[in-house]
Amino acid sequence: MTRERLVVVGGDAAGLSAAAQARRLRPADDLEIVVLEQGPDVSYSACGIPYWIGGQVSDRDALLARTVPQFEADGITVHTHLRAEGIDLDAGEVLAADGRRFGYDSLVVATGGRPARPRVPGLDAEGVHGVHRLADGADIRAAIAAGARRAVVLGGGYIGLEMAEVLQARGLAVTVVLADPLPMAQLDDDMGERVCAAMCGMGIDVQPGQPVREIEVDADGVARAVRTDAGSHDADLVVLGLGMGPESALAREAGLQIGVTGGVDVAHTQRSRSHPEVFAAGDCAQTFHRITGEAIHVALGTHANKQGRVAGSVIGGRPARFAGVLGTAATKVGDLEVARTGLCTTQAEEAGYDHRSETIEATTRAGYYPGAAPVTIKLITERGSGLLIGAQVVGGPGSAKRIDVLATTIWAGMTAEELAGSDLSYAPPFSPTYDPVVVAARVASRIETG
Amino acid sequence: MTRERLVVVGGDAAGLSAAAQARRLRPADDLEIVVLEQGPDVSYSACGIPYWIGGQVSDRDALLARTVPQFEADGITVHTHLRAEGIDLDAGEVLAADGRRFGYDSLVVATGGRPARPRVPGLDAEGVHGVHRLADGADIRAAIAAGARRAVVLGGGYIGLEMAEVLQARGLAVTVVLADPLPMAQLDDDMGERVCAAMCGMGIDVQPGQPVREIEVDADGVARAVRTDAGSHDADLVVLGLGMGPESALAREAGLQIGVTGGVDVAHTQRSRSHPEVFAAGDCAQTFHRITGEAIHVALGTHANKQGRVAGSVIGGRPARFAGVLGTAATKVGDLEVARTGLCTTQAEEAGYDHRSETIEATTRAGYYPGAAPVTIKLITERGSGLLIGAQVVGGPGSAKRIDVLATTIWAGMTAEELAGSDLSYAPPFSPTYDPVVVAARVASRIETG
Repeated sequence: MTRERLVVVGGDAAGLSAAAQARRLRPADDLEIVVLEQGPDVSYSACGIPYWIGGQVSDRDALLARTVPQFEADGITVHTHLRAEGIDLDAGEVLAADGRRFGYDSLVVATGGRPARPRVPGLDAEGVHGVHRLADGADIRAAIAAGARRAVVLGGGYIGLEMAEVLQARGLAVTVVLADPLPMAQLDDDMGERVCAAMCGMGIDVQPGQPVREIEVDADGVARAVRTDAGSHDADLVVLGLGMGPESALAREAGLQIGVTGGVDVAHTQRSRSHPEVFAAGDCAQTFHRITGEAIHVALGTHANKQGRVAGSVIGGRPARFAGVLGTAATKVGDLEVARTGLCTTQAEEAGYDHRSETIEATTRAGYYPGAAPVTIKLITERGSGLLIGAQVVGGPGSAKRIDVLATTIWAGMTAEELAGSDLSYAPPFSPTYDPVVVAARVASRIETG
Repeated sequence: MTRERLVVVGGDAAGLSAAAQARRLRPADDLEIVVLEQGPDVSYSACGIPYWIGGQVSDRDALLARTVPQFEADGITVHTHLRAEGIDLDAGEVLAADGRRFGYDSLVVATGGRPARPRVPGLDAEGVHGVHRLADGADIRAAIAAGARRAVVLGGGYIGLEMAEVLQARGLAVTVVLADPLPMAQLDDDMGERVCAAMCGMGIDVQPGQPVREIEVDADGVARAVRTDAGSHDADLVVLGLGMGPESALAREAGLQIGVTGGVDVAHTQRSRSHPEVFAAGDCAQTFHRITGEAIHVALGTHANKQGRVAGSVIGGRPARFAGVLGTAATKVGDLEVARTGLCTTQAEEAGYDHRSETIEATTRAGYYPGAAPVTIKLITERGSGLLIGAQVVGGPGSAKRIDVLATTIWAGMTAEELAGSDLSYAPPFSPTYDPVVVAARVASRIETG
């Protein structure tokens, strides 16, 4: 038996899921597995960083899902602090920063994402932070401990909302500066308005429609304000929450085919479309929308894990394919939970769907049960077929996870009418007699059926 | 236009859903609607009664979804305190207790359920209470106010668990006497054991495997103890939580066809199979299982509402049919949430399914996020097809409603593998990166795919 070698570049969700799955299917005497990670940590939860900053998570190490010794125990060699500087696709080698060359039979590129950075003066100043690596979390914690009192968060997506919440909880005055007219651009405007109102109600200073022009710095070169066309917003701390693009420079420079989204262009098996011995997975890869089939880029840990697993399965000899994304996501700001799946109205229009939408108001529990909170659900259906193609949920505690029923409905290709007739659970502590998703589905289907 | 008359017998979920839906589709000058309700209240939430007893709901009227004047405003005549004593199917008339006869063109029988009562001496004694009507709730509240300190709950189903919780919360010492070896007979034993352990951990005295032999009464005829073969359990208050059968005596005596379950035998349109001008809906009617097609009886407000709505639609001239039940249900006892859907192992065996089951342990939120609680999920899949046919969930706060994703998966006819690949939401406050239902689906599908 010739022992083969799998090299993985990137030691977080996608890369290590690939490594672990390949190892499950092929023992160490059949497949050597080597992981190169440029940073100090592997397998950490980037999504948990806001809550470490906020103090909900007290121990940094709690964000580490698995450690290097745990991988080594499975016969997976992990090199931390070792950056991959190049890939020689012809030779089948990864070139490491220390000069070593790692030959591979299979390669998984899992270089992750890169926080979007507006090209404005001062963005590299001290006091401007991403929320991407554990070191970012440590820096922001240190800034708060050093007395930061005013924070400006750039962007109102998931990270922006979560950072606004946790920084306010830590006692800082928080301003959220948006280029868009509303936070949560992945929602329709009427739903985004609810999020905006809730943020303002919490005392977060939302400044919409203001692209950043400059980060103003003091004499020491430290960020002191965020300037927009509407004025200057003082800041002891500036946080980037502008979304995440694919970190695909290594792949691009090596000559791997890059897709229209800037991510590595891969088939459903996560194989590179140009070099089948190379796989890409997670935030660095392009993927496809389950409904439209269109190429998209979504930076989320769930997909990274699953795509890594698919790559690992294929490398391990078991057929597998990634089944696409609906863009399902959830977040919260204070007590307001926000979730979405499928196509929003703008996306449905762009994709050429003849669609309609319905919005309902309900409560998370029986109206008389303590803790019942308002919840608003918007459904988008295809006219004619009645198929559910999108859903958005905004409401109090217990709202967000209801998106999963709607995501499953879309995934299964069910109509709103079928969902309205389905058998969901009911007890007063958990829902009204008709669950809000059923109420929404019924209203949506009533219009279809006349 | 000849004005027709719809008579509805029973003024709770099923009857009034039928009335309201028929009214939406046919105006008052086309269809007269008359509802006969034997009790004082209409449209009340029986499921909320335990929480009124427990004090989570302080106002009895909060349990009333709609009032008589609200129905009257829609042109629906409601007679409370008026019992239907007979149905003359040949003449098309309902005979009321006050001697009036209500002729009908369409009739909806919605006489509800009847708490199961073991045939033992003393069951009719003072101090023995059902949890069925608002008056039952008032009686139990009065008994507590009068100083009841020891409660014995007969039965460990949904009502039994909820009553145990709320009576303990009101300061009573609670004993739950079970004929079965475990509470929650709708769960597999391994899951029922978890419920039993949690109840015992709360200080609830669970007495399994003890069919009730007698309710012992004092010289005044008041219940004082529940006697089983194992001994006598003192009680100031005895609560019946033994489930609910169909209250179909009126229909049976009239000559309507009754099904094998004792409920009125109806087609998917909720029409009586023997008398198509008569409909039955809710707890008095027989229904069918979505997976097996078998006739079953399930007493739940969700089905009552939907079946009533189907009957009202058909009477209103719009085709509709009830789509079956999965037996989805949820409840809680203390902080432990319990939910199930589809077939349990016993049911799968009885229905002739070649099946297997898998059980996983996970957490409700990211492990590092505050409030993350253990959750156990058991999935039952059909061998060969990999179709999900049943699921059970037991865990901390946030567990129960996850059953809805599993119910939707079954409803859609999806495999565990398809669920494992689906796009569910993730954020640390709401779930681990892989939601527990996805973890369970993946483990279940791994076995199918080898």
